[in-house]
Amino acid sequence: MLTKADLQHLRSLRDKKQRELAGLFIVEGEKVVSELLKAGFVFDAIYATPEWTGQKTQGITNDEMARASHFPTPTSVLALGRINRQPLPDSGLASGLTLVLDGVQDPGNVGTLLRIADWFALDRVVLSPDCADLFSQKVINASKGSFARVTVHSTDLPSALATVPPAVMVLGCDLIGEDVHTISPARDAVIVIGSEGRGISSAVKQRISQFVTIPRYGSAESLNAGVAAAIVCDNLRRSLPV
Amino acid sequence: MLTKADLQHLRSLRDKKQRELAGLFIVEGEKVVSELLKAGFVFDAIYATPEWTGQKTQGITNDEMARASHFPTPTSVLALGRINRQPLPDSGLASGLTLVLDGVQDPGNVGTLLRIADWFALDRVVLSPDCADLFSQKVINASKGSFARVTVHSTDLPSALATVPPAVMVLGCDLIGEDVHTISPARDAVIVIGSEGRGISSAVKQRISQFVTIPRYGSAESLNAGVAAAIVCDNLRRSLPV
Repeated sequence: MLTKADLQHLRSLRDKKQRELAGLFIVEGEKVVSELLKAGFVFDAIYATPEWTGQKTQGITNDEMARASHFPTPTSVLALGRINRQPLPDSGLASGLTLVLDGVQDPGNVGTLLRIADWFALDRVVLSPDCADLFSQKVINASKGSFARVTVHSTDLPSALATVPPAVMVLGCDLIGEDVHTISPARDAVIVIGSEGRGISSAVKQRISQFVTIPRYGSAESLNAGVAAAIVCDNLRRSLPV
Repeated sequence: MLTKADLQHLRSLRDKKQRELAGLFIVEGEKVVSELLKAGFVFDAIYATPEWTGQKTQGITNDEMARASHFPTPTSVLALGRINRQPLPDSGLASGLTLVLDGVQDPGNVGTLLRIADWFALDRVVLSPDCADLFSQKVINASKGSFARVTVHSTDLPSALATVPPAVMVLGCDLIGEDVHTISPARDAVIVIGSEGRGISSAVKQRISQFVTIPRYGSAESLNAGVAAAIVCDNLRRSLPV
């Protein structure tokens, strides 16, 4: 049984501040909980009604679920995970492939970008503090389980980029730049994607070693963040033997 | 002034059936109306409050806007456009580049795919009847103005694909297929994107001449429809001199 305090606690976690205070986040829904379990994510607690056939730690009634849920139509499962923020390793962004998100505020975009990083086996994703919150339901949903597989750091970008050795390309995706089809193969590189509205911030722009652009043949003003990142990743990867 | 009947009519257009009966669709919001006007779209009517500084056909009060709007927080402009469905030309899909959407149901995805078709200057987009409605606000919003620039047809896909000459490749994007990095250059081709959940339908699969896939390096189960289409378009376009 869930006490009144339990319910209040669970409901409070829809708020980012409360999540940070508690060090916990919440996801609801059969699809997202299944995806995270399949990816090996270990939850602190899994509350489920009798309809849920997967792993759980506590059975609850439909009425309790309705009161704990953030959704107008509750699902059969609600899980609690621990917020685990990994500091950047000492080597920083010097080796491997890093995707840097500079102010990407749409949670759907951040989730899609995690999924892309996962598909292309990037070594890490680094978020600026003003990106959508990694531990929000919308980001986790949109990542389709990649949330549990991709290494993500959140840090001040200009400082993190300042430590990148000169031999490592820092590619900035922009509307003006070198044709992405001609970028040099690189096993170590940083790909920077700017915010939906204003692109890459000026402090981060100073750390870009090469701007790259996706050739445009028609009239659309831009491509969305996920699409642009995916095309750059595909072009970078295709030049490297597996 | 808007009569009670006018208001009722405008509000009714949020419903697809009513839109079809009236042959009219509605979009609201400064951003989307500006994007469509900039793209040269000609509206039947543009209702605007004094805050709207752009083109309009009728000034209305904030109170009237609040009653006409579909939004909890109304904007300053609401525009009425004519639903114009273009039949497939006699030449069908035989020449140029066509993007075919087979049951793409998420309006955001359909809008993003129109934007991609616009960026890569595809000749047309063909929707199956079970795709998200082209004239819904969400599709038009997500297209960022590309709605007004891209030629879109809606038709039964197996019949339309049956008329494609054998010399024209019909590429089906799937998780198994030929590496997209090795596809032959083609000025005439059809790219088929399946639905988010079940991929390409079996009737359409029979019309695919070549399945293509985007090499996966990591663990994500799939890429979203827009991302996949964009990578295929980029690979097809990069092999062709402009």
